[in-house]
Amino acid sequence: MSFRTIDWKDGAVVLIDQTLLPHTEEWVRIGDAAAMVDAIKRLAVRGAPALGVAGAYGVALAARVHPPGSPEFEEVVRSLRSARPTAANLARMVDRAAAVAGEGYERVLREAHALRDEELAASLSMGERGADLVQELVTRRPIRTMTICNTGGLATVERGTALAVIQTLHERGVLGEALVLETRPVLQGSRLTTWELRRLGVPHRLLVDGAGPALLARGDVDVVLTGADRIAANGDTANKIGTFGLALGARWAGVPFVVVAPETSVDAGTPSGAGIEIEDRGVSEVVEVAGRLVAPAGTAATNPAFDVTPVGLVAALVTDRRVVRFEKGDFLADRGPD
Amino acid sequence: MSFRTIDWKDGAVVLIDQTLLPHTEEWVRIGDAAAMVDAIKRLAVRGAPALGVAGAYGVALAARVHPPGSPEFEEVVRSLRSARPTAANLARMVDRAAAVAGEGYERVLREAHALRDEELAASLSMGERGADLVQELVTRRPIRTMTICNTGGLATVERGTALAVIQTLHERGVLGEALVLETRPVLQGSRLTTWELRRLGVPHRLLVDGAGPALLARGDVDVVLTGADRIAANGDTANKIGTFGLALGARWAGVPFVVVAPETSVDAGTPSGAGIEIEDRGVSEVVEVAGRLVAPAGTAATNPAFDVTPVGLVAALVTDRRVVRFEKGDFLADRGPD
Repeated sequence: MSFRTIDWKDGAVVLIDQTLLPHTEEWVRIGDAAAMVDAIKRLAVRGAPALGVAGAYGVALAARVHPPGSPEFEEVVRSLRSARPTAANLARMVDRAAAVAGEGYERVLREAHALRDEELAASLSMGERGADLVQELVTRRPIRTMTICNTGGLATVERGTALAVIQTLHERGVLGEALVLETRPVLQGSRLTTWELRRLGVPHRLLVDGAGPALLARGDVDVVLTGADRIAANGDTANKIGTFGLALGARWAGVPFVVVAPETSVDAGTPSGAGIEIEDRGVSEVVEVAGRLVAPAGTAATNPAFDVTPVGLVAALVTDRRVVRFEKGDFLADRGPD
Repeated sequence: MSFRTIDWKDGAVVLIDQTLLPHTEEWVRIGDAAAMVDAIKRLAVRGAPALGVAGAYGVALAARVHPPGSPEFEEVVRSLRSARPTAANLARMVDRAAAVAGEGYERVLREAHALRDEELAASLSMGERGADLVQELVTRRPIRTMTICNTGGLATVERGTALAVIQTLHERGVLGEALVLETRPVLQGSRLTTWELRRLGVPHRLLVDGAGPALLARGDVDVVLTGADRIAANGDTANKIGTFGLALGARWAGVPFVVVAPETSVDAGTPSGAGIEIEDRGVSEVVEVAGRLVAPAGTAATNPAFDVTPVGLVAALVTDRRVVRFEKGDFLADRGPD
C-alpha cells in the first residue's frame, strides 16, 4: 500500500500535517498561496523534494488568482521562495514553476504535476535499483535492514529514498524487518519512520541511536540503508548526525552500508567531506526532549545537525539514475548517470 | 569542591533524592531501616557502590532499635537485602554489616562507616591513577574528555569512576572540558552527569549519543573515559548501550579509549564478552522520553541495556588497584592487583 504525503485534489493541494505526527493524522487542504507559505513555514511539510512540489503548487495557486507579472503575483512568488531560506530545492522549484507562468494557470499547474510525477518516478527508481543491489549483496533471507532518520514518503511525495528500498524489498516479499534508529535530537525515526512503516505494513522495531553498532556487532542486521543530505565528489556523504557511527558499526560487523539519494544530492563542486560545512542547530534540541527540559537549566550543548561518512565506509550509492559501487573501486566521477 | 551523595549525620543517613534531579536538589534524612528500604526501592539512591553503603547503614539503623538475632531484626535485614533483587553489591554489603550485628549497634555503624570510607578511597585511587594515565597518554593541553552515562559521585559516595578521573584532571588544572553523551534511553548523561559537573565547576557540554563519533572524527576530543558494568577475563567490557559505538569512533580517530571501574567489576569467571548476557529493558524506555510517548502507540522496540566493547578497542583499564595497558600488550590475568 502506498500514499502520497502531498498531492493535488479537486482544485487544491492536500498534504499531511507533519507537525501532528505520529499521534494525529490530519490532512490539510490548501486552496491559496498564502496558506501554502504558512504550511511551509510552520513545517507542516518538510524534506527537499516535498518542499519543491509544495512550492510549485503554491505558484499555481497564485497564478489562478493573480495575473502572472502583476505585483501581487511577484510578491507571492517571493514569499514562497523564501518561506524556508535554506531550502535550495524549494527556491529552485518555485522558479521552475514561475518560469512558465506567462502561459497561464493551467500551464503552471501542469508543471507542478510534472514535478510531482518526476519525484515519484525518482523514488520508484531508487527503490528498484536499491532492492536489486541489496538482494545481490545479501544472501540471507529474509533480509534484515537498519536505517536512520526519516527517508520515506513524508520527505518526498511517496516512497522516498532509503525507505523506498525497504518498501520495495517488503513488496518483493524478501524483507524480514526494518530496525529504525530513533534519531535524536529531533526523533524523526521514532515519530515519522515508524509511522510510515506501520502504515505500509512493514515489520519494524525502534531502538535508541546508541544501540545501532551493538545490534550490528551481534549479527542482527544484513544491510544498513541511509539517505544523504549532500554527497561530495569523492563520495563522502553528509547525513543526519549518527550516520557515521552506524557506518563504523557496519564496517566492524562486515555489513554493507548503502546510501540512497537522488542524483541531485551529488555536489560535484565539493571535492570531499572536508569541504562540507556542518550546521550547529543550537542548545535547545539537546537539552529538551519532546518539549521538556531534561538537563539542568543553563546547560551548554553542542548540536551538529549532520556528520560526514567517509566514502571508504560506503559500499555503494544508489541514485535514481545509477548505482555506484565504491567497494568495487567505482568512482562517482567515472561516468555520468545512465 | 566535593560532596557526598550519601553520608551519616547526627544519627541518621542523609542522601540526595536522585529521582528529583536535575531540576530539584532535595536531601532526604533517613532515620530508620524501613525508610531506607523505601528509598532504595523508589530509586532515590542508585549505583552499586552507593546501594552497598545505603544497605549497610540500613542494617545499622535496624540494629539500633531491634536486638540483633530477633525476628524483627532478621526481617528488616531480609527486606534491605531484597529491596533491589538484581543489585548484588547491595546484598553483599547488607550481609557484611549484618555479620557484625552480634557485637551491637555501634559496631555495625563502624562497619558501615568503614564501607563508606573504602568506597571513597577507591574513587580517589581511580581518579589519581586515571589522571596520571591520561596526562601520560595525551600531550595536548588543556585536555578535552568525552564520557557516557553517569559515573560520578551519585552512583558511588563521592567522585565516582570515570567521572573521578575527569574531576581529578580538573583539580589538577589540566582539563579543557568534559563532553557528555546524553545516554538514551534513561538520559543519565543529561540528567545526572551534567548536574554533577555543574556542581563541581567542571566546564562541560552535552551532546546527543549519535554525535559522539562525529566529534571524535573532527578532532574535538583527546581521550574517552567510560565506566564498566562488568569486565570479562580477557578485558572485553560491558557498559551502558552506546559505549561500543563510542569506542569505534575513538579507534577511527586515534583517540585513547579508557575504562575506569573498581577491581570488583572484573569477572574472572567469564572468559570473554561473548559470555556476558545483555538484558533487554523493554519497549517503554524507547518509545517514551521523559514520560511522553514519542512513537506511534503500539510500536515495537529492542532495548539492550548494555553493549560489549571488545578489548581490542580499549587502550587501558584503570581500577582502584592497578592500570592495565591493553594497548601495550598487558593482559588482565598477567598479575594480580598491586
